[in-house]
Formats: sequence, structure tokens, C-alpha cells
Amino acid sequence: MYPVITFSREFGSGGHSIAKAVAEKLGVPFFDKEIVDEVAAKSGFAEDFVEKQGEHTSTFDRWFAGNMYGNNYYDSAQDAIFKMQRNFIEDKAKEGPCVIVGRCADYFMKETDIKTLRVFIHADLEHRKARIIERYGEPEDIDIDRSIHKKDKGRKAYYHYYTDQEWGDAANYDLCIDTSNISEENAVDLIVTLAKAMDE
Amino acid sequence: MYPVITFSREFGSGGHSIAKAVAEKLGVPFFDKEIVDEVAAKSGFAEDFVEKQGEHTSTFDRWFAGNMYGNNYYDSAQDAIFKMQRNFIEDKAKEGPCVIVGRCADYFMKETDIKTLRVFIHADLEHRKARIIERYGEPEDIDIDRSIHKKDKGRKAYYHYYTDQEWGDAANYDLCIDTSNISEENAVDLIVTLAKAMDE
Repeated sequence: MYPVITFSREFGSGGHSIAKAVAEKLGVPFFDKEIVDEVAAKSGFAEDFVEKQGEHTSTFDRWFAGNMYGNNYYDSAQDAIFKMQRNFIEDKAKEGPCVIVGRCADYFMKETDIKTLRVFIHADLEHRKARIIERYGEPEDIDIDRSIHKKDKGRKAYYHYYTDQEWGDAANYDLCIDTSNISEENAVDLIVTLAKAMDE
Repeated sequence: MYPVITFSREFGSGGHSIAKAVAEKLGVPFFDKEIVDEVAAKSGFAEDFVEKQGEHTSTFDRWFAGNMYGNNYYDSAQDAIFKMQRNFIEDKAKEGPCVIVGRCADYFMKETDIKTLRVFIHADLEHRKARIIERYGEPEDIDIDRSIHKKDKGRKAYYHYYTDQEWGDAANYDLCIDTSNISEENAVDLIVTLAKAMDE
């Protein structure tokens, strides 16, 4: 059986496309935005809210919410979403091999005995900028460096808060690939080859 | 042409064996201990001294040496060895594709325009201990945890001192492989496949 494959990815590194191509080549289910949809449907929270709270956080957000609401309403909403995402991911992983993007899935899987391949996709800033512009076009009125930095920072803070591990530390993953130097096609082939080699 | 492949590795992760097997499969020169031999021969320093100074350092060593020798003799010897290793590595890389283990080679190569694949091999403590015992037998009178920790710490400090980068941070490598979960054979195959895909 193939392993469950989790992907963590830097914004603009091509991680989403690589993960999707891997799932297609292996013929296994793919979960990224699907996790948001499911949690939004079950919780009644708006999709946008789940998407933001389900993978991004900042100490400022937390400080602000703590002071504004006192009653920890804000933290509780994020924690509730976190738990629902975790349940969703664990349920899917138990059903069989699949590909899961983001949302600390690598961390959850470590605490199960399900065979897992934990992948981290990253790239240097220059390549990520080029990839974002190629995909979405040259943005107007947006500082793209700042936008990448902000997205990374939110994901890092979220990951650190919920796992107490460092995002992007090689120790947390079985395989880390830099797409500045390794093409998306080669990255897909590597992961597929490895998943097949792990199929016992 | 294949890329130059640099290997950084945690002690006991199987990095040396993997690097050697990759060089053999690609039919390219392999440099690990060979770097020490060459630098020892050229410098007149003892091999043991080059080996220790050429990849390990600690803040205590530096503090002790600074206080003992005042004249920075110790730092100068380490810096001289560092420079000789760097020259050796750059010369070999210019000659053509090869495999180089340790000694900040990934960092030196970044500053050249030679096509490079920078690999980091790591594993969790439990697997590294098992691998060391399998290879060298159960040690007597040695605390193996302490010994692994000390070796890692020395390599980390050396890398950080000379490159100002964090050892084991995925951002510094094209490919990081955890041999706790991925077998040595699979790791070798991945790297060889990738080197061949990068052969243009």
C-alpha cells in the first residue's frame, strides 16, 4: 500500500501543483481546499474564515483578540477549526493512501502508526516570485515580496503554535525539495518513485 | 553533464555510504576523507588534526584557544585548513562532476556558477544509534547518545561559524532525505535519478 503523503509548502514554491500531480499519478484522493470546504460545512463558519484561521496565525492576531474579546472567543474558534481539521485528516488517512496539503498534517501523522511520507516543498524568494507572477500575472498595487513574507510568516506561526516544531526544519520531514533548482516534473517523479518503492 | 553533488550529513545517518554509492553509480570521483589527506599532505599538519579542525569546532574550543594562545594561533590553523579545503573542493568541482562530503561544500558551490545538487542526509536519534551499533558494534565505556550529540554539535558550530547559515535548515539544500523512513537504497536511487534528470 502506498503511504499517506503530506505536503508542507512555502507560498509560491509550486507545492500545491506538485501534490496534485502526485495524487493523480498514484490515483489516490487529494485534499487541500477540500479540507476547508468540509470543515466550513460541518462547523457553520464561513469558508473564508476557516481558510484564514485554519492555516494562518500571528502573535499580533492573538494578542489583539485576547485584548478585544477577553473571553478567548477568537482563540476558541481557531482551536475548534484546528481540531476539526485534525479529525478530518486522521479519518481520511485511516481510509487509505491519500495526499494531504498543509494544516500540520505531517505532525498529526507522526502520532499515528499509519505509513506516511512527509514532504516539504520550498524555493528561494526569486523563484517563488517568478512562479507567482507566471501564474497570477504581475500584481497591481501589491508588494509581492511583502505578500509572500506575510503568508509564510502566518503559516510558520500557525505550525509552531500547534506543533511546537519549526516549519522548514529538515528534521520534521522525510523529504525536502527545493524547486529553485529541481523542476516540478522532477519533483513529482521523485515523490511518485519513492511512494512506489514504499509500497509493500 | 551531471551536477556536482555535495552531501551534508548527520553522524550515523548513513550519509557517507549513500554518497559513496551515488558516486559509484554515476561513475564520478568521490571526496570525503580524501580531502583530509590532501590538505594534510599540503599543509604539513597531522591528518588527525586536519580531520578534527576541518569539520568540527565548538565555542569552548575557541574560547580556550583564545585564552591559551592569545596570538590566535589556534584560530589561524583552523582558518588555514578551512581555506585549503575550500580551494581543494573548488578545484575538484571545476574539473567536472563529482561527489563531495561535508566541509561546507554546499556553501562554497553556491558562490560559483557550477551546476550543483546540494543534499542533506539526516535521521532521528533512534535510527542513527541503531546504524552506528550495526556498523561498529555495541561500544564499551562510551555513552553513544552523548557521542552523537557532541559530533553533531561540532559540525553544526563549524558550519554556522564559516557560513553564517543554519545546518539542517531545508532552505540550504536542494534535497533533504530522512533515512529513518527512507531506506539507503531508495535514497541512492532518488539522488542518482535526479542527477541523471539534471544531466543536460
